Amino acid sequence: MSDLLNLLKERRSVRNYEEKAIPESVLNELLEAVQWSPSWANTQCWEVVVVEDPAIKEELSQTLAKGNPAKKNFVQAPVVFVLGAKLKSSGYYKDQVTTKFGDWFLFDMGICTQSLCLTAQAHGLGTVIVGLFDQDAAKRVVGLPDGYEVATMIPTGYPSKVPSAPKRREIAEFVHKNRFSGAL
Amino acid sequence: MSDLLNLLKERRSVRNYEEKAIPESVLNELLEAVQWSPSWANTQCWEVVVVEDPAIKEELSQTLAKGNPAKKNFVQAPVVFVLGAKLKSSGYYKDQVTTKFGDWFLFDMGICTQSLCLTAQAHGLGTVIVGLFDQDAAKRVVGLPDGYEVATMIPTGYPSKVPSAPKRREIAEFVHKNRFSGAL
Repeated sequence: MSDLLNLLKERRSVRNYEEKAIPESVLNELLEAVQWSPSWANTQCWEVVVVEDPAIKEELSQTLAKGNPAKKNFVQAPVVFVLGAKLKSSGYYKDQVTTKFGDWFLFDMGICTQSLCLTAQAHGLGTVIVGLFDQDAAKRVVGLPDGYEVATMIPTGYPSKVPSAPKRREIAEFVHKNRFSGAL
Repeated sequence: MSDLLNLLKERRSVRNYEEKAIPESVLNELLEAVQWSPSWANTQCWEVVVVEDPAIKEELSQTLAKGNPAKKNFVQAPVVFVLGAKLKSSGYYKDQVTTKFGDWFLFDMGICTQSLCLTAQAHGLGTVIVGLFDQDAAKRVVGLPDGYEVATMIPTGYPSKVPSAPKRREIAEFVHKNRFSGAL
């Protein structure tokens, strides 16, 4: 089994972090991981806001619903990555939508999110991908202009607690040979 | 620099493959990479059709626009992964949309796509993520039922030609400190 598959299997949603800063060199590798992600026709729609300012992290935590347990992560994590995207880029050709799914920014955000989280894991860092919050409020906090959206926020830090893995669907449940429901 | 970052930097969109089958054990690792991907509240909306039948690969190639150079990849690649998703799962809570972006299946498809492509790269395999095709036609080819969509198709094989890297935005161009356009 490859080292990468180990990384994939060991990655968890980490919500508790040590009080320990992330070295600049490591931070830079995480950003390189985004930079080298594939994207729709190489459009690279991503914008990454690296939030270390405690006041802004606190503001971002307020965009989560009351009672969301992830709120405290934002204050505790040394870094919160806010992943934004330029609209009308991924999935478009000459300003026109090219598929039934319209803007593909969420797809490209998913790709670079996984690049970042796996690279973090390779450095012993824990991440949690937060998608459930008021995206418009977060956009105001970080000052993203019109034509852009905040997709996710990723609190990141050295884990003080690593949860066990949530259950996965068996491969036979989601894999089909040649056609849907084809036997493996 | 981590091995993973090397993998990320060396991954290309590979469109030319050797006539060489992918061993079952490797194929299984690629599927495990999907299995262990994170997803919205662990909803795991993915369905993967592993197409090796030449007639079905040919049919899938017909869902691409005339003149799309990726057409020949479908016939040449030993395996084409068709990545589908269950709708109203990612981004939903009790059948209700939870964010302004509606269904997040494209985000989760992006995550597991990157897991699969990086694991392929770790095994010396080349992939190309195809998003521009008639998704409804591909859905009919592989027989995905209502309530599901085909997102992407990924021809995969041992590269006979590896292209050079397309240009990337500089980190300073897309990274911001604390707020959008904040100096690094």
